[in-house]
Amino acid sequence: MRRLDELLDRAFCRALVVVARSSRDPFVAPFVGAARLGLCLMIAARGSLPRLGFLSPMDRDEAASTGLDLLTPDALDVERWSRRGAPESQLLAGVLSRALHLSELAPGPLAVAGCWGSGTVLEACGELAREGWSFKAGEPMVMELRKTKSPVQLEAVGHAANGTVAAFQRVAELLAASSVRDGELWLEGEPLRVGRLRQAISRSLADHGLEQPDGNIVAPAAAGAVPHTSGINEQALRAGESLVVDIFPKGRMFADCTRTFCVGQPPEHLASAHARVVEVLELARAKARPGVRGWSLQKAVCHRLDQAGYPTPITERGTTRGYVHGLGHGVGFEVHEYPSFKEEAGEEGVLETGDVITLEPGLYEPEAGWAVRIEDTYAVGGDGLETLTSLPYDLDPRAWHGVETPSYQGQAS
Amino acid sequence: MRRLDELLDRAFCRALVVVARSSRDPFVAPFVGAARLGLCLMIAARGSLPRLGFLSPMDRDEAASTGLDLLTPDALDVERWSRRGAPESQLLAGVLSRALHLSELAPGPLAVAGCWGSGTVLEACGELAREGWSFKAGEPMVMELRKTKSPVQLEAVGHAANGTVAAFQRVAELLAASSVRDGELWLEGEPLRVGRLRQAISRSLADHGLEQPDGNIVAPAAAGAVPHTSGINEQALRAGESLVVDIFPKGRMFADCTRTFCVGQPPEHLASAHARVVEVLELARAKARPGVRGWSLQKAVCHRLDQAGYPTPITERGTTRGYVHGLGHGVGFEVHEYPSFKEEAGEEGVLETGDVITLEPGLYEPEAGWAVRIEDTYAVGGDGLETLTSLPYDLDPRAWHGVETPSYQGQAS
Repeated sequence: MRRLDELLDRAFCRALVVVARSSRDPFVAPFVGAARLGLCLMIAARGSLPRLGFLSPMDRDEAASTGLDLLTPDALDVERWSRRGAPESQLLAGVLSRALHLSELAPGPLAVAGCWGSGTVLEACGELAREGWSFKAGEPMVMELRKTKSPVQLEAVGHAANGTVAAFQRVAELLAASSVRDGELWLEGEPLRVGRLRQAISRSLADHGLEQPDGNIVAPAAAGAVPHTSGINEQALRAGESLVVDIFPKGRMFADCTRTFCVGQPPEHLASAHARVVEVLELARAKARPGVRGWSLQKAVCHRLDQAGYPTPITERGTTRGYVHGLGHGVGFEVHEYPSFKEEAGEEGVLETGDVITLEPGLYEPEAGWAVRIEDTYAVGGDGLETLTSLPYDLDPRAWHGVETPSYQGQAS
Repeated sequence: MRRLDELLDRAFCRALVVVARSSRDPFVAPFVGAARLGLCLMIAARGSLPRLGFLSPMDRDEAASTGLDLLTPDALDVERWSRRGAPESQLLAGVLSRALHLSELAPGPLAVAGCWGSGTVLEACGELAREGWSFKAGEPMVMELRKTKSPVQLEAVGHAANGTVAAFQRVAELLAASSVRDGELWLEGEPLRVGRLRQAISRSLADHGLEQPDGNIVAPAAAGAVPHTSGINEQALRAGESLVVDIFPKGRMFADCTRTFCVGQPPEHLASAHARVVEVLELARAKARPGVRGWSLQKAVCHRLDQAGYPTPITERGTTRGYVHGLGHGVGFEVHEYPSFKEEAGEEGVLETGDVITLEPGLYEPEAGWAVRIEDTYAVGGDGLETLTSLPYDLDPRAWHGVETPSYQGQAS
């Protein structure tokens, strides 16, 4: 929490206030852990321990399980507002004002973060402004606090990573078991479609206690060539085409992993792009260690891909073919968080021991209708990266058979 | 969209603006359907069709799949802000200002809804205020728009309800298959714990393409007696105690259903409370039809339970024993939405044809350590309620065996 005091000092703010519609809000989650709460708020005044406010008396056991100092619905006088049938913005203004008072704060600047409802917050904070409070964006502050993971948080990413590995093995099995008829993949007497792989992924993740709040990407051919296109369940898969599978599930924390498959003989341009992506992934992995900027890894990858004749975001800003995006990102409370790999990033762009990141180089050809992306989740350690999603890189799912994929055993190992 | 124009007129607002970190935000979801987008915004000016803005060029295919008029990253000049390394609040202010300009709106009052980041929105809207814009809470407006479901939305709730029914059947099977040793339930050679039931629920839901973004409640004995307590995975189940199972999973939409089990002989007070809960559920169900207020159903249930000697929120405000909460709520885009069952509700408290609601009476005894809650999801039709979660009410899971539970077939049936 000393780190938070520094960040508050630097922003000239008296406290960090997080408002949330539920405890799964990624800005309140770092403070409340596994507890399940509805409407809630967190106040961390400079130099004090954070206090958790909750609005429903029925959440009392869950709130107590956080071990935080609590501001109960009674203390926040929630009933006063509900009895009047006040709009939610008045309820929010009322409980915030009360919570700030109970935290012995005098009106002044506050850092605010979290998601309640934007319009509701605007109205509520408009009322508080009349009491003398002012507001700054507290999201970057919480993102800095979330950047480096605690051992428990790393464990939770490792758990999600292990489940992701199992889901990929299941996908590779299904693809390897398929046969080719007139160029189409068939499995169990019917064409193998995107939806069949999605179903296998969901089931495998559920077995590991994981879900996919942000969905996934199972994108064959041209669909894969636009990096965020999800892929349509009904689409049947074909031999010789690329299939980008990007899974980013969540237990307590997220992991994020991508592989590209091709059943049958890959076209020459796909095979060479795949080899190049593996090469630059290994290049970046070898350079990554504490103190290195994400942007410097991106530059190294762009340089190598440029040499190999591919457009990159550095040589051709806004390109939609070749290498079209950033190299990686932090992952944990959200799929994308700090460290940042952007050129303009400040200290949030520097890798540190305890960060969890992904590296995800890719090559895309929307016109020709193919793509390659490979992505792993890594823990940043003193000596460099530890891979949390150990899986083969092979395009051919048959080459995955029997390959040992060590699961993440935690830091004790 | 005529309805939206009415709501905008009534609030003296020129447009509804929804900002969202992703398309799964329940305030943007009604407009974008199944598309998967990251940072995005929606502007619906009075008298115009809604326009969807998106910030990553990689989201272009997903955005196009919505069929909405698009404000592309180029049109919103997103690059201008990222190139400068501007903080996210400046990016948001910049793209909002541009989007409002492109929508041919002159500065004036806007209704704002959705979750971006509260602090980021406060800073961004502070800048826009200097251009002459002002802001009202738009969340109640979107909640009114979401209240009555379209046939496609009802179908999606029905899908979630069918998966919920299957998960409950699995829970009943496991409980029925357990044996009692020294008062403890055993299954497959080990004590039957909350976590084992949770695992079965997740798997069963995954088979139906459903997830549990808000978790679930599997709460034995005293845990069940605080209505929002989730229950601890390690806790072993015992014969003769109550077990509250409340599942509220989501596919495209949420469903919500609760049953209470007791393996072995239920104590007399538990059995009589269960009978009373079934009675008042049927009482409320029989009275519910279009035009009826949720609050009038709550009053009827409180009256009956008061007659039967239980404290209620009407006879004993803030009670934590007896009947301690509201009777029901709308369900769909969120687990709790309109119609409201609160006393102070206006027109959002009146049931209409096409609403989807739950009824969930319960009785709680925290001191004695037991609880009963039963909840179904219903579609409000012209003649009354259609049950979407048809399951037995029996405490004894063995009584569930072989009971026909018709799945929801959609409106055509």
